[in-house]
Amino acid sequence: MLGIQDIGVHIPKLRSNNFDNKDKFSISDDFIENKLGVTHTSQMEVNQDSSDLCYEAYKDLRLSNSDFSPENIDVITVCTQNPDYSLPHTSAIVHKMLKLPDDCAAFDISLGCSGYVYGLAIIESFMKLSNFKNGLLFTADPYSKIVDDNDKNTVLLFGDAATVTYISQNSIFTSGKFTFGTRGSGFEHLICRDQKLHMNGREIFNFAARTVPGDIQKVLELNNIEIEDIDRFLLHQGSKFIIDFLIKRIGLEKEKTPYAIKNYGNTVSSSIPIMLKECIGDNSIKNILISGFGVGLSWASGILTRNINI
Amino acid sequence: MLGIQDIGVHIPKLRSNNFDNKDKFSISDDFIENKLGVTHTSQMEVNQDSSDLCYEAYKDLRLSNSDFSPENIDVITVCTQNPDYSLPHTSAIVHKMLKLPDDCAAFDISLGCSGYVYGLAIIESFMKLSNFKNGLLFTADPYSKIVDDNDKNTVLLFGDAATVTYISQNSIFTSGKFTFGTRGSGFEHLICRDQKLHMNGREIFNFAARTVPGDIQKVLELNNIEIEDIDRFLLHQGSKFIIDFLIKRIGLEKEKTPYAIKNYGNTVSSSIPIMLKECIGDNSIKNILISGFGVGLSWASGILTRNINI
Repeated sequence: MLGIQDIGVHIPKLRSNNFDNKDKFSISDDFIENKLGVTHTSQMEVNQDSSDLCYEAYKDLRLSNSDFSPENIDVITVCTQNPDYSLPHTSAIVHKMLKLPDDCAAFDISLGCSGYVYGLAIIESFMKLSNFKNGLLFTADPYSKIVDDNDKNTVLLFGDAATVTYISQNSIFTSGKFTFGTRGSGFEHLICRDQKLHMNGREIFNFAARTVPGDIQKVLELNNIEIEDIDRFLLHQGSKFIIDFLIKRIGLEKEKTPYAIKNYGNTVSSSIPIMLKECIGDNSIKNILISGFGVGLSWASGILTRNINI
Repeated sequence: MLGIQDIGVHIPKLRSNNFDNKDKFSISDDFIENKLGVTHTSQMEVNQDSSDLCYEAYKDLRLSNSDFSPENIDVITVCTQNPDYSLPHTSAIVHKMLKLPDDCAAFDISLGCSGYVYGLAIIESFMKLSNFKNGLLFTADPYSKIVDDNDKNTVLLFGDAATVTYISQNSIFTSGKFTFGTRGSGFEHLICRDQKLHMNGREIFNFAARTVPGDIQKVLELNNIEIEDIDRFLLHQGSKFIIDFLIKRIGLEKEKTPYAIKNYGNTVSSSIPIMLKECIGDNSIKNILISGFGVGLSWASGILTRNINI
């Protein structure tokens, strides 16, 4: 059945240490560790770009899939709002790097923090349309290209990373029904103007706090599944403050709701698949709820269910 | 049945006259009229951006659909490589302009001249996944934002425009099977570096000349339809030279293969839907072949068939 077979992840080793910026931004250890919840942000090399991060994630995928055949890939998609160039699409560059065949479809999706959930729905439905067997969904949105070093709202928060999700017939997880939402009236709250990122942190927090609990309720009902039957809640890792709030507000079990980004930061559309990779080998995890929210403003949620092996 | 109900088009009235540039570029009337085949290029206003062009196309759609209800739109997609901002996605801004509801999905697709064919496949498959009834597929890629005024390869060729395709259950045309292709090894032949467009015209021509005939053959076979049964060949309008070449090379009937861009130029992903709008009201047109090719390098083709009214 078409679904997620495996995930490759690349989080750059190079880190920026937020404790080094305590004086510059007049912030405390407590703020860094407990409110922001990010002590270090991952940084790509200066000579790297989004396609290079995708390639590194692909190498990670290949490590655990020695029988992988690039010539069998029918479609690749890159979800990014920081492409190598405005044109062509980054997936064309990745297509070259991976030496994929001419009959491989390639397109980019422009979405932010909701991008992984959307991307999964888009690539899976696209593959079903053409009866495609093998696809790769990349996420790579290195905000180091656009953060303002003097803006503590963003420079302390965002990290660089990329992931690739291998969609095939030999799936471990299959998708249920998705929810999608948009509030374009708030599009200016997280925006890149003149190649600099601007974030109204309070508005983004309020948006997430007001929208995500209802959306999680909606996706559970849509899939006819009880909240108790969810083994992991993989929420987009906006900041520790928003994850802590959502856990409390919705009444989620803390051990089922990872907070994972302390050592690398908010990696936008990569935050959910980085955590999802950890779930693949753990057979005790049957049902996973994924929920992304941010830039747009945009949100999307879905349920992933482990296939029962015969 | 889910498919194309109607199309709205916006081609800005403002034009740049290529004859005014004859001396600057040492070119002849014959070159302008017969080889390039573009006498004027459409130009958006200086205070406009891609979302504004989308909104104008939407107003055109509304003119002929007085009973249209924005609150029933389930999803919108904007295909562009010249978004208003790198983030958020332009579809979020259009979502605001159209006062669409919170539960409307919105995402951008980054593709160039193959974007309309891809976009149709992506939005239709996405809608089928969630059983969505009404969607809007926008194309808007105003190259006036990136063309170099001193580059005769591009400034004389590209025009600004936008379209919106209304996908609904009350469709006039439904899609058959699609073909998709990518040659990432040629990604540098049409590229935007440092906000300036660069095109290797010879390479792009050679790519199209070598790839499109085979792809048209492939999509005909895939849909089990004879070339004689196609009433219109809507080929991406790269230039008069490439359209003339493809007509001759494939042996297409000239009256079935429009060349439409003399007065406004190559409008990238909008070139096919601009011509398709003209076909909607003409009941003598049953089967249409659409084929897009360019930036990436990327190509895609499909067959549209008029629904038989009972």
